[in-house]
Amino acid sequence: VVSAGLLVGSGDDATVVERHAPMVTSVDAVVEGVHFRIPPFTPAQAGAKALAVALSDLAAMGASAREAYVQLGLPERLDREALALADGIGEVAAREGVAIAGGDVSRSPSLFLAVTAVGSVEEASAAVRRDGARPGDALVITGEVGGAAAGLLVLERPELGAGIETVALDALRARQLEPRPRLGAGEALARAGASAMIDVSDGVAADAGHVARASRVGIAIEAERVPVQAGVAEIAAAAGLDPVELALGGGEDYELLASIPPDKVASAEEGLAGVGERLHVIGSVGAGTEVEVRQAGRRREIPGFDQLGARRAPSGPA
Amino acid sequence: VVSAGLLVGSGDDATVVERHAPMVTSVDAVVEGVHFRIPPFTPAQAGAKALAVALSDLAAMGASAREAYVQLGLPERLDREALALADGIGEVAAREGVAIAGGDVSRSPSLFLAVTAVGSVEEASAAVRRDGARPGDALVITGEVGGAAAGLLVLERPELGAGIETVALDALRARQLEPRPRLGAGEALARAGASAMIDVSDGVAADAGHVARASRVGIAIEAERVPVQAGVAEIAAAAGLDPVELALGGGEDYELLASIPPDKVASAEEGLAGVGERLHVIGSVGAGTEVEVRQAGRRREIPGFDQLGARRAPSGPA
Repeated sequence: VVSAGLLVGSGDDATVVERHAPMVTSVDAVVEGVHFRIPPFTPAQAGAKALAVALSDLAAMGASAREAYVQLGLPERLDREALALADGIGEVAAREGVAIAGGDVSRSPSLFLAVTAVGSVEEASAAVRRDGARPGDALVITGEVGGAAAGLLVLERPELGAGIETVALDALRARQLEPRPRLGAGEALARAGASAMIDVSDGVAADAGHVARASRVGIAIEAERVPVQAGVAEIAAAAGLDPVELALGGGEDYELLASIPPDKVASAEEGLAGVGERLHVIGSVGAGTEVEVRQAGRRREIPGFDQLGARRAPSGPA
Repeated sequence: VVSAGLLVGSGDDATVVERHAPMVTSVDAVVEGVHFRIPPFTPAQAGAKALAVALSDLAAMGASAREAYVQLGLPERLDREALALADGIGEVAAREGVAIAGGDVSRSPSLFLAVTAVGSVEEASAAVRRDGARPGDALVITGEVGGAAAGLLVLERPELGAGIETVALDALRARQLEPRPRLGAGEALARAGASAMIDVSDGVAADAGHVARASRVGIAIEAERVPVQAGVAEIAAAAGLDPVELALGGGEDYELLASIPPDKVASAEEGLAGVGERLHVIGSVGAGTEVEVRQAGRRREIPGFDQLGARRAPSGPA
């Protein structure tokens, strides 16, 4: 994919890109052994996920993705996998219409991928920040959650998947190994008037906390309204966990969590339908400064999970 | 430093920057044990050099530097040095007028710094590429070279510095530990009409080779005309090396090497004087496809050095 505005590509000291709009930039680095392991990730999946996660941050701003720059730290033992890794990145770039405008490969004792994703918005005020949530707004989420955490559990302990349909199991594993940035949904939510937006990387509860703190508001989440991916409840039961913990504390689903005035929810739903995505109202923005998760009429705590599956302390910033 | 165009800073999913000019982007990653070691580098110097090297690529395009994004992979043993490292980056950013617009710290088994530097040019055609050198152009270089390689030798074998003035020794070590991007010089050379430009990271001979290949021209370098930093000859002699090898093969000086029509050399010299830098004509562009180094009227080979001081094979791409 070559971006229309790419004037000088890689091979020179730097890349030159024509840009006559506000530029939205996200940086994200992932490190083997910290953010992922090979296996269960293949090198191609590790590359693809690194780019997808950086693009997800652009989605969370309502930006349109344009270019990405990839810096790869490659240990000798993975030299033969370098092409597969680049292919994984290239596939996501092609699918999402992003140009890989520059890059750099370094020898490194451990594998890392540092991605810089660049997008644009029509005007700066169109970028949806974390700090715009207002009391009275609805809290909405795209797609379904819990799948990435359940997928990781199954990858680490395959016996947890006994008795679950293969299709559902494959989808759970793919949620963890091959997440997809919700770029179309992010643009649609921005157009519909989302007041704040974030991608679900740390977990719905923790990410709602980031919005609450930035916006200086309280957020109430109704656990029963949170859309949970098929198979998550079964994996949770097999692992002796509460499914709500996986759905709200699990993270890495890379769905979009947004606040939006209630009278704009219908047009947001329409916009999302236009890009093949579904929207769910899962709570509301109010006064206060905290995130409250309610289940069966009572308040409850949501412990978080880190990206290699260990349980974290309840809620709190990542 | 906050860039005038920085609309949403770090803390959100992404950064938003107002940009109504072609954008020039360079990515550069450095890895401990591969590109540098601590010591002799302090963490602050490692951070400062990572940013300086990325900015040097913008200088080599004739671009004006705007923002930088820094992704840090931090091993636990350096946790207490993280602030010093950030300070080193901040000092270079402040001195060069660059905003650190975003960043990311990851746990990593080994220290890495992946920097994305963003600059701009007034119009895309103003970016000076590697492929514009034409037969008849003069080959020019800013400042003096050889110091970074000699500085590394002295850091590794302090006895080589015996008998050299402290001021010169300090300057050699600083060339290696604290290189400076030639941003003002790069803009001045672009304005004066440089036809191709590159920064001296791999060594004058190897970097001239990059220009020759991209431009499909031959380049002749006259070794006697290459400006060599004070003390390089003495260090080379003490190490049993030819000073020309350090000056042309050493690399990491981060001076700018450019081709320019002969009738524009005088205005380039004036432009550089305006930013406190000096320009030297060290050769010429001609027909052919190779870099020829001439010394005492004869052609000679220049072996390269890698960034940790081991000798590389003669010339060739890095």
